Amino acid sequence: MGRVVSSITISADGYSAGLNQSEERPFGDDGGDGWGDRLHAWYSETSEENRAEIDQMTSARAYIMGRNMFGPVRGAWDRQWNGWWGDNPPYHAPVFVLTHHAREPQPMEGGTTYHFVTDGIESALAQAREAAGDGDVAIQGGATTINQYLAAGLVDELRLHIVPLTLGAGTRLFEGVPPLTLEQVSSRAASLVTHVTYRVLPG
Amino acid sequence: MGRVVSSITISADGYSAGLNQSEERPFGDDGGDGWGDRLHAWYSETSEENRAEIDQMTSARAYIMGRNMFGPVRGAWDRQWNGWWGDNPPYHAPVFVLTHHAREPQPMEGGTTYHFVTDGIESALAQAREAAGDGDVAIQGGATTINQYLAAGLVDELRLHIVPLTLGAGTRLFEGVPPLTLEQVSSRAASLVTHVTYRVLPG
Repeated sequence: MGRVVSSITISADGYSAGLNQSEERPFGDDGGDGWGDRLHAWYSETSEENRAEIDQMTSARAYIMGRNMFGPVRGAWDRQWNGWWGDNPPYHAPVFVLTHHAREPQPMEGGTTYHFVTDGIESALAQAREAAGDGDVAIQGGATTINQYLAAGLVDELRLHIVPLTLGAGTRLFEGVPPLTLEQVSSRAASLVTHVTYRVLPG
Repeated sequence: MGRVVSSITISADGYSAGLNQSEERPFGDDGGDGWGDRLHAWYSETSEENRAEIDQMTSARAYIMGRNMFGPVRGAWDRQWNGWWGDNPPYHAPVFVLTHHAREPQPMEGGTTYHFVTDGIESALAQAREAAGDGDVAIQGGATTINQYLAAGLVDELRLHIVPLTLGAGTRLFEGVPPLTLEQVSSRAASLVTHVTYRVLPG
């Protein structure tokens, strides 16, 4: 059976998004200084230097993401929204979206299909494991969703990409998660980011 | 003039100490699992591997620390307390302790003298700069004190030692500090820790 992995870009103070996320500002308030862009500069501006980590982010065979990462639509699906990633998303695999509102599966180009799961994180994981076969399942984010899986003891490996800025408020990785014992598997510095991979040990 | 530097060991979720610090538990509640020991294992158990970072922690020419890092005595100095570090502390330089309660300077062996500063962080920094000459001043901790200096824009360089565990509650670096723009100066992985040095850029 594959592992359950999670890869997330965070500020030095642990935030993955600011307050008040919206369609115009998918990473939330940034004080007008392009915080969302600076958070992700390591893979947009220095992609060759970080090729291994970037490739690893889309190497799972099934994905799970929260409704807020999937898009800005809240409540019922009263408008068509098929994710931030265009007609041919980078996943090329089933993506299970956690939501309280049922919706038919949405096939996309390139092998990605969005499935909408209304009965909780354990059900989503069971479906993703089934879809992934012996491949990995990635808990794709956002931080709130990763925190739920961490708190439930369901994540095997955590890959942090720590960037040189702080936000001071927003959605924070590990917030509300009981203490974890980690094992540092690897750590690597690039010019705009420090990558750290942890194995999450049984509590 | 030297720089103002700060070196601090934190958990992967940014905490440097748990709740309820006391004389028996200087790093606070640890759920009985020796969290304080595990937080500092990188320099107690793997000191040779981390010699450069450890030497750098005591290379400043003057130090500033908060009252709670200096010791567990709260309120008036109603008992003799000369720090956690014995008769010959590792500083070998003036140490300025922030407190609301005046006390005469306390000379120790080996060149360390504890000075007690009652008129705020900027006064303590001015006195430490004076004492350090062209050497560096270290804001030694704890996180609450470092956060005050960060919020005031008075720190030039931040050296984080990130260890593989999370605490979930306690005293957190960057808590309440407005957003900072950092420059990643260096990053290095050791077996029990990832070291990251940031320059703090003017806001």
